[in-house]
Amino acid sequence: MSVHTPQIQASPPLPEPVLRRLRDVFPPGRLYTDPADRLAYGYDNSKRMAMPQAVVLAQSHEDVVAVVAICNEFSVPLVVRGRGTNTTGATVPIHGGVVLSLERMNRILRVMPGDRLLECEAGVLNGDVQAEAAKYGLFWAPDPTSLAYSTVGGNLGCCAGGPRAVKYGTARDNVLGLRAVTGAGDSIKTGCTTTKGVVGYDLTRLLVGSEGTLAIITEATLKLLPRPQQVKTVRACYADVKSAAEAVARVMNQPQTPSALEFMDGDAVRLAEDYQPTGIPLGTGALLLMEVDGSDASVDAALQAVCAAASGPGLIELRTAANAAETEALWACRKALSPSLRKIAPKKVNEDVCVPVTRIPELVEGLAALSRRHGIRIVNFGHAGNGNLHTNLLADPDDPAQMQAVQACLGDVFRLVLALEGTLSGEHGVGIEKRDYVGWEIAEATLGVMRAIKRTLDPRGILNPGKALPGI
Amino acid sequence: MSVHTPQIQASPPLPEPVLRRLRDVFPPGRLYTDPADRLAYGYDNSKRMAMPQAVVLAQSHEDVVAVVAICNEFSVPLVVRGRGTNTTGATVPIHGGVVLSLERMNRILRVMPGDRLLECEAGVLNGDVQAEAAKYGLFWAPDPTSLAYSTVGGNLGCCAGGPRAVKYGTARDNVLGLRAVTGAGDSIKTGCTTTKGVVGYDLTRLLVGSEGTLAIITEATLKLLPRPQQVKTVRACYADVKSAAEAVARVMNQPQTPSALEFMDGDAVRLAEDYQPTGIPLGTGALLLMEVDGSDASVDAALQAVCAAASGPGLIELRTAANAAETEALWACRKALSPSLRKIAPKKVNEDVCVPVTRIPELVEGLAALSRRHGIRIVNFGHAGNGNLHTNLLADPDDPAQMQAVQACLGDVFRLVLALEGTLSGEHGVGIEKRDYVGWEIAEATLGVMRAIKRTLDPRGILNPGKALPGI
Repeated sequence: MSVHTPQIQASPPLPEPVLRRLRDVFPPGRLYTDPADRLAYGYDNSKRMAMPQAVVLAQSHEDVVAVVAICNEFSVPLVVRGRGTNTTGATVPIHGGVVLSLERMNRILRVMPGDRLLECEAGVLNGDVQAEAAKYGLFWAPDPTSLAYSTVGGNLGCCAGGPRAVKYGTARDNVLGLRAVTGAGDSIKTGCTTTKGVVGYDLTRLLVGSEGTLAIITEATLKLLPRPQQVKTVRACYADVKSAAEAVARVMNQPQTPSALEFMDGDAVRLAEDYQPTGIPLGTGALLLMEVDGSDASVDAALQAVCAAASGPGLIELRTAANAAETEALWACRKALSPSLRKIAPKKVNEDVCVPVTRIPELVEGLAALSRRHGIRIVNFGHAGNGNLHTNLLADPDDPAQMQAVQACLGDVFRLVLALEGTLSGEHGVGIEKRDYVGWEIAEATLGVMRAIKRTLDPRGILNPGKALPGI
Repeated sequence: MSVHTPQIQASPPLPEPVLRRLRDVFPPGRLYTDPADRLAYGYDNSKRMAMPQAVVLAQSHEDVVAVVAICNEFSVPLVVRGRGTNTTGATVPIHGGVVLSLERMNRILRVMPGDRLLECEAGVLNGDVQAEAAKYGLFWAPDPTSLAYSTVGGNLGCCAGGPRAVKYGTARDNVLGLRAVTGAGDSIKTGCTTTKGVVGYDLTRLLVGSEGTLAIITEATLKLLPRPQQVKTVRACYADVKSAAEAVARVMNQPQTPSALEFMDGDAVRLAEDYQPTGIPLGTGALLLMEVDGSDASVDAALQAVCAAASGPGLIELRTAANAAETEALWACRKALSPSLRKIAPKKVNEDVCVPVTRIPELVEGLAALSRRHGIRIVNFGHAGNGNLHTNLLADPDDPAQMQAVQACLGDVFRLVLALEGTLSGEHGVGIEKRDYVGWEIAEATLGVMRAIKRTLDPRGILNPGKALPGI
């Protein structure tokens, strides 16, 4: 932590009147002012770090109302936080102020299985929701990699996706309503308890993905889905990226939408195989990992349809798993990738750009050209069914020249994505990392409307300042 | 039209400076000032009517920008309109001003079948989108009854649903991005061309369902879905409503979600059978019409699963259709209902309340009690898979006492729905008809945020004044 020490020392305490008001609401065990206690709330999975001036742990919606009122009164920044698994710096308190942790608002309030919904506080872990829903044969669609230790509030704040999104949508598509406190301090209830509803404006989805800059979500009504009886896995290895990308487009252009459609380029496959050989055939230039789900009676037909669509020019090998062990073997290469990347490039720049599915071949070819031009190794994998690629720029963080090349390359990556009618982020969000690029994608007039909404819901600008949008 | 004549005569012409500016933009064939021409743009399917002071027909986004600028300059109300198929008065210009028809903005701009999306102008008919998408084996999910003659812009403005929503969602769930002009006159572009995207706030869904009160949608990027190879129909007749409602909950609590789950109560069945007998078994107190879709290989298994779930206490008869003629026969009773209702009650009050699926039995029992208490015949049918019932209050419009009883009964219906954690409208929207009830469902603090957003996007309040929210 030595590199962060200056920031810790530079963080002044909050003025005594603010602390006094916070103490009125939060007992000592739920108000941290000691730097050693605050430290853990200053970073997130972006590896960025800034010290909060105070940390409060809310136990109720009313606690949240209280801290919003105090921060408004004294114009103190307020950064809400689940478990800090985001990769964009969205929960790093770059302007100091108070970090509000919802980790203790972790109650599942009720499950209505016949209505396919679950109500919970925002601090509940996604994994705990899944476990509770599973008791009733249901699941919540968002399945980010961080599922076991990320919160529902964080998933909603960042509009989390995951492999299943290709069939079941992201957080935005799987929430019926919210309870929240706006930056102005208003307690609001959005949406409804039904799967259809058109009374009033859709504030639910305005808050989803807004990264805690408009309101603090305290409770959510989640839309659950019935768990499929069967899941089948198939791995398809191709001679080159173009063949694999064309297969993605074929798979997505037939009625049996897979429940996962993951992609790895040749470099990603080689990295993973170097780390731990998993029997990928020689000459594999790209692979697809696909899952198909359905009922006992329907899943085999769905699998056949997906296999047929995946077959075509450049296919080297198509393997389906007959049992759990074989499924694990097919996924082994994909699972070896993250540790292998961490090993060779602990400071990799991991983007999550997204293009229309049919533009994936151009994206991957364009990325290869940029890699050559900038002398930066780029490894691609991700959720190809949505056109959402995790583009990893690998460089040595201790080499300033390389890091400068990474920055230049990153700009060209984003230009390429936008030229292909894509978006800079499919699921990770903006936070600090991409804030200064948002204007490349969203025109000024539209940004102006977003900023006006920000001012409307958070007139003093206390909520998560410096995140999500440039110029707020 | 005689009852409306006073309104026509009472409508003053727009001030000459406004007309002059409108003439600068719109040639005579696209600017109507003659009452005879304006008349057709003053009503919608709510049967309400108010004369616009002028009508303009836009042919481009730029035309819309121009008319918004003029209406802002002179503080003239501006009501956007597709084909006026809404049932809530949402497109009736109750405060006069300009009606902006998008009927000539009816171009499909492009189809990207491999990316499952279609871009079009807002004035395209839903049916034309379906026809174009079908060429590529795709469809757009929203399927309101008005599909053949309602526009995409109207469907989005009202967040249209339909029978398929139970499996595929409503307009909100099937749109990727919009082009629009805010009330302030800003041209904005929301969302993206990909199925995932988290850059900026979700303005797309803020506009969907806002009934033209925040911005005028000029173009849309629609999310398409692959057409199923097979659709199978099953009709289940039950002894009573409770048995049918319990069957709905069972059907929705298993993985094979039907692509339609329509309900008719006993009174609705009798009405339809009186109009045209279709062979419903004697003693039927409620029926369910269900469709199941899927691949050739999977659809029969899905049908079996739904039939098994539909079977239980109170089931009198379960019929599946083996061919197109049998499918038509099963739907005949449902299709006879609307003409029979029109015949006996041309001025029926048709609500579209929505409750969690498991509360349907309480809703239907409660409605029966209200019918007895107020002496008003109530006939229920609708999209039971979403808990969305079309509740028809039948009365003679020429009998003031009955119409007063209808109003009292309606209030009690809404109280019942809210007590069951439902919403006042599942898909029809608010318009004028339900505006004064919105405050029953949405608390004042939340309404306050909605009004603040309205003022932010439409500071002069020119867009569709008096609609959607009370107090705007």
